Amino acid sequence: MLHAVIVRCPHAHARVRAVDTSQAERMPGVRAVFTGTTPEAALAWRFGEPSSPFKQSSFLFDPHCRYAGDEVAAVAAETLQEAAEAARAVRVEYEVLPFVIDPRQALRPDAVSLHPDGNRVGEPLVWERGRLEDGFASADVVLEESYSTPCVIHTTLETHGCVAQWDGQRVTVWESTQGVWEVQEDLAAVLGLPRSSVRVICRYIGGGFGSKYRLDKHTLIAVLLARRTARPVKLCLSREESFLCVGNRPSAQMRLKAGLTRKGVLTALQLVNLGVPGAYPDDTDVGYLVWDLYRCPNVRIEETSVMINAGKSRAMRAPGFPQCAWALEQMIDALAEKIGMDPIELRLANAKDFLYRRNETPRLTSTALDRCLREGARAFGWAEARRRPRAEGHLRRGVGVAAGMWPNPGGPPGSAIVKLHADGSVNLNIGTTDIGTGTKTVMAMIVSEEMGVPLEAIQIEYADTATTQYAKVSGGSQTVITTGPAVREAALEVKRQLLELAAEELKVPAAELDLRDGQVVHAGGAGEPRPLSKLQALGQRQVLIGVGQRRPNPPGAQGLPFVAQFAEVEVDTRTGEVRLSRFLAAHDSGRVMNRLTYENQVFGGIAMGLGLGLTERRVLDRHTGRALSASWHDYKIPTALDVPGEMECLPVDPHDTECNNLGAKGLGEPATIPTAAAIANAVYHATGIRFTEAPITPMDVLRRLAERR
Amino acid sequence: MLHAVIVRCPHAHARVRAVDTSQAERMPGVRAVFTGTTPEAALAWRFGEPSSPFKQSSFLFDPHCRYAGDEVAAVAAETLQEAAEAARAVRVEYEVLPFVIDPRQALRPDAVSLHPDGNRVGEPLVWERGRLEDGFASADVVLEESYSTPCVIHTTLETHGCVAQWDGQRVTVWESTQGVWEVQEDLAAVLGLPRSSVRVICRYIGGGFGSKYRLDKHTLIAVLLARRTARPVKLCLSREESFLCVGNRPSAQMRLKAGLTRKGVLTALQLVNLGVPGAYPDDTDVGYLVWDLYRCPNVRIEETSVMINAGKSRAMRAPGFPQCAWALEQMIDALAEKIGMDPIELRLANAKDFLYRRNETPRLTSTALDRCLREGARAFGWAEARRRPRAEGHLRRGVGVAAGMWPNPGGPPGSAIVKLHADGSVNLNIGTTDIGTGTKTVMAMIVSEEMGVPLEAIQIEYADTATTQYAKVSGGSQTVITTGPAVREAALEVKRQLLELAAEELKVPAAELDLRDGQVVHAGGAGEPRPLSKLQALGQRQVLIGVGQRRPNPPGAQGLPFVAQFAEVEVDTRTGEVRLSRFLAAHDSGRVMNRLTYENQVFGGIAMGLGLGLTERRVLDRHTGRALSASWHDYKIPTALDVPGEMECLPVDPHDTECNNLGAKGLGEPATIPTAAAIANAVYHATGIRFTEAPITPMDVLRRLAERR
Repeated sequence: MLHAVIVRCPHAHARVRAVDTSQAERMPGVRAVFTGTTPEAALAWRFGEPSSPFKQSSFLFDPHCRYAGDEVAAVAAETLQEAAEAARAVRVEYEVLPFVIDPRQALRPDAVSLHPDGNRVGEPLVWERGRLEDGFASADVVLEESYSTPCVIHTTLETHGCVAQWDGQRVTVWESTQGVWEVQEDLAAVLGLPRSSVRVICRYIGGGFGSKYRLDKHTLIAVLLARRTARPVKLCLSREESFLCVGNRPSAQMRLKAGLTRKGVLTALQLVNLGVPGAYPDDTDVGYLVWDLYRCPNVRIEETSVMINAGKSRAMRAPGFPQCAWALEQMIDALAEKIGMDPIELRLANAKDFLYRRNETPRLTSTALDRCLREGARAFGWAEARRRPRAEGHLRRGVGVAAGMWPNPGGPPGSAIVKLHADGSVNLNIGTTDIGTGTKTVMAMIVSEEMGVPLEAIQIEYADTATTQYAKVSGGSQTVITTGPAVREAALEVKRQLLELAAEELKVPAAELDLRDGQVVHAGGAGEPRPLSKLQALGQRQVLIGVGQRRPNPPGAQGLPFVAQFAEVEVDTRTGEVRLSRFLAAHDSGRVMNRLTYENQVFGGIAMGLGLGLTERRVLDRHTGRALSASWHDYKIPTALDVPGEMECLPVDPHDTECNNLGAKGLGEPATIPTAAAIANAVYHATGIRFTEAPITPMDVLRRLAERR
Repeated sequence: MLHAVIVRCPHAHARVRAVDTSQAERMPGVRAVFTGTTPEAALAWRFGEPSSPFKQSSFLFDPHCRYAGDEVAAVAAETLQEAAEAARAVRVEYEVLPFVIDPRQALRPDAVSLHPDGNRVGEPLVWERGRLEDGFASADVVLEESYSTPCVIHTTLETHGCVAQWDGQRVTVWESTQGVWEVQEDLAAVLGLPRSSVRVICRYIGGGFGSKYRLDKHTLIAVLLARRTARPVKLCLSREESFLCVGNRPSAQMRLKAGLTRKGVLTALQLVNLGVPGAYPDDTDVGYLVWDLYRCPNVRIEETSVMINAGKSRAMRAPGFPQCAWALEQMIDALAEKIGMDPIELRLANAKDFLYRRNETPRLTSTALDRCLREGARAFGWAEARRRPRAEGHLRRGVGVAAGMWPNPGGPPGSAIVKLHADGSVNLNIGTTDIGTGTKTVMAMIVSEEMGVPLEAIQIEYADTATTQYAKVSGGSQTVITTGPAVREAALEVKRQLLELAAEELKVPAAELDLRDGQVVHAGGAGEPRPLSKLQALGQRQVLIGVGQRRPNPPGAQGLPFVAQFAEVEVDTRTGEVRLSRFLAAHDSGRVMNRLTYENQVFGGIAMGLGLGLTERRVLDRHTGRALSASWHDYKIPTALDVPGEMECLPVDPHDTECNNLGAKGLGEPATIPTAAAIANAVYHATGIRFTEAPITPMDVLRRLAERR
């Protein structure tokens, strides 16, 4: 196996004049050096999904480098050290260009242009319903405020990487990815190969959060180097590269205006957002929560997206939602205060049980936002906490709440196969990547419960485009609710076949038989249980196969998850530090499939929201345009010492029997959507100061406290 | 990964008194040394299938060593060299016992006993129909003769070997095997694990011929060493071990008596055989062809099996059949001469179209033995060749014929899954090992033809118990006829689904649509073809899945393959050498699935039969009991210079539409069944000398020629 290293542009904006690889090529162990002029690497590159509206392309090694980190060349060598040394020996002659990293500046007509069509990503997107003016006219209270959230990084514990190997005309890629099928589709398209000739496997993945969603340049580079050298090639990005080059949550600059009656009825919402995808186009829209979290007849949202000379953004856990919650849920808090209503009551007053769509209002199969708010408040001790004294020496205490939803009900396509062996053990075959959220545990439990097979007799084959079944990407809180129902159907199908065989052999109607503890049992409890391994008909068949499909959702209805989160903070007026002392997350994600993995998802979401609210942001050097925060030393994510000592997860299960055959709804995204906003509301409750720019740093707190004094 | 080496007993018969591993354990790189007293290696071992009647067991490292090669200890070390050196440093104290290698001596009551129950493998097996005495009484000619075939070795080009790796409670074994499912079943049973926790994969196999059929001791040793060391362990046998320890075709000593009328009607056949399975029990029966190749009302077969101190036998390409053909087909030749009939005519006169079974005579769905004989004779120029002068200087020329059949019609269970991607490419999923016979080629062709998908868009996943579908062992000429029909059914099922989707989208009845060249076409030729990749409904589904099953054979009928082979030899009366100058194999194996792989199977079978007839035999040293022929230097298999310069394959296809949905019948075994007998008949025709002991060596020829002079 060879090891590969990528040569990246050190300038925020530059043009490659020439690349001299002669010295690198002569170095020990070097087997290939690719540049923009290497014939097989001269490939057009388009970011995003094939269906994405962002057609703007670069090349695999584009001579126009648009951020400090863009790919310029790559080296494959016998060892990682040899590859790294040869990469350093590649001589690149750059024409350094002026750069722009401020989005407002990038919008100016005289700004440096990153792409032939300019820096704007298309025209601004406008979504509208009702008549905004009427809404504001009928309001008793109108508030308007600017909010912003920073660019934050996914910071996956495992960096991006792959191993690529060719066997004749077929390539196999072991990839750290959330979606083997997406990587397969993209790779087949760019290589011009049948999909069946591109095998993508993901055994394990150390975190993705949306940054390992589709094909990346580094993977294509590894694949091409492997073809050239006829050797397997391993290419794993460095920690620094993982901060610079593989995605982030785009910053949002939001202006939100809201109208409310004295009785607490929302009459109008207007959001204008400027999103920043970095040097290449990406979806930076944030408005969905404004559109659909609350009942509101008059809404207008305007989204503008502008490119700057910085690393590209990418889907990140609930793309757009934590940003929008930061604005909307702080605004709701301010509105409630304005009319003297409890913020929970104001939210309850505007909750709804349908969705706003272009020509329809699909019903929700269940919605327990109200229960999340009420039961969460009760468990958190909301009323008492709101009344408690807020000052104690140099500390200020406060509590806050914020709500959220996530609009993905899951759905087809998706398949699963259950293979029952003659000894009663099972291989479950699903194409889903387990991104660390316990997918394999949950799927095995579904099979175990339906088939009465002990968990230890179930093995799962997963995330291999060659040998497992199609599944959507593990992201968007859709894994359990898309693959799970197919798994259940497959298990039920094998059970049906098995009971049919057993009925014939035991001379008992199938309807009177059931499966339990690896045995065929008589439903009434009569008769001797028959272990599956003793069932002759099964031994003759050797294996039974059941195929399950993800069936469509009920027509005109969707099952969506809701959340209300409650934060208690302690603000140190001497240091400006905000400590999250207590947190409760009340979630309507339908049935709890596994309590442990459920809670871990929620706690992880809280930690991530805490980072957005208090500690994380990408910092670009205004003198060079380079990222100053490209390591865990310079970029602060919450650690075990930062998360609340008391962190509680309260599942609220509305017993939804309609959303899908599991009664489960998504969980991964809701867990992080309102967290930062809940913290900001708690800080306001503690200090009386509204922090509208995330993160709320000790410096900001001290400055605002000083300003007030 | 560690490497393992097995310590083997150097004595033909011995008892292990003590094993001292202290020195070996101290050697560099050594990670584990296992002996018979190692707790986890103290496992009972039973040779053969779980359903085998041979219950006689040994232990994994049995203190009673029954042949020079029995397993005594094993070492795992960082390198193969370190393991081999440590294996040599294991000190074993043996009590050397008297040995027996002559089967007649082994039958004596005072013989050294290999097992507590003695050396006989059970009671002699007798199969009988009609009344033998009546048969002989009504015969005009009765002949009786002794025949023998030697013990020959499989000599797979790749030796036996595996890599074993544990992951928690699950073990994965990459094995050079004909049957991943059999190895899984055996390994799960001996380890007490669910089958799903034992994953067996065979990527490639360099020859098996029956010797890589089920779990072997070396594999279990690797698995246990891997568990102990928590490291992957590779254990590949040496060439010498592959000659000594992993199987051979048992020798047969046959006495055959036959009765015939003057008109050429067989009236009685009596066979007595003494088979020798080596040091452990195995199936050594040979009588099947006597029982069922020809119509004969009175038959008696008696099979005795006796163990000696030598390496154990194992299924080898058409187990028992080449031995029996050696006797029967020479006897038919002699009978024909006796009544002055052409040997082909005598065979035709006794051909039949049914099978003799206990209480029934199942019909053959097709039988073209007659066409094999007639068309083969015509193509070979039989009549002219029989008349040609036989002597030319020191050379004697002759031609001979022999026939055969193989009683495996294939059948359930067996499954296959076809997965069609949105771009029209296909993954075919089968659990079958391709043992080098072109299974993957043939299966891909089936899918390609049924679905109109180009071959290069089809990838096959195979021989992995975790991710592929159950399949019978690749052996017994059953692979194409057992897996193939399931593959065809799966392809047809996906085609059905696809045409249904296409019908809806194109607003054309499904019955009017077909698939061709990756497109949906209108059966009548009207309308625009639609590439599969442009079918929206397929894009939405992403993947279609079709499951196919091997359906049962027609009731009361079987589709079996037949063969007639024609040999021309040149006997050098000065050197005694027999040169096979010309060979023609006429096969009724039903439909030719692929001409190239068909011919290669046949030519390989001929080469193997040539070895049995002329060059191969295991030689045991009567002074030590050790095998003297444990290398390719000392054991002579035919090379490219030994096979006939003119070798022709004549497929005879009876267009059997009933045997299975492919019309195909087995081929691998028939190809080698009559070869040696045809050569012996040709030698008789050339020299007038009947050689009844295989192989016919130059020494034998010279001796017999001298005797005649």
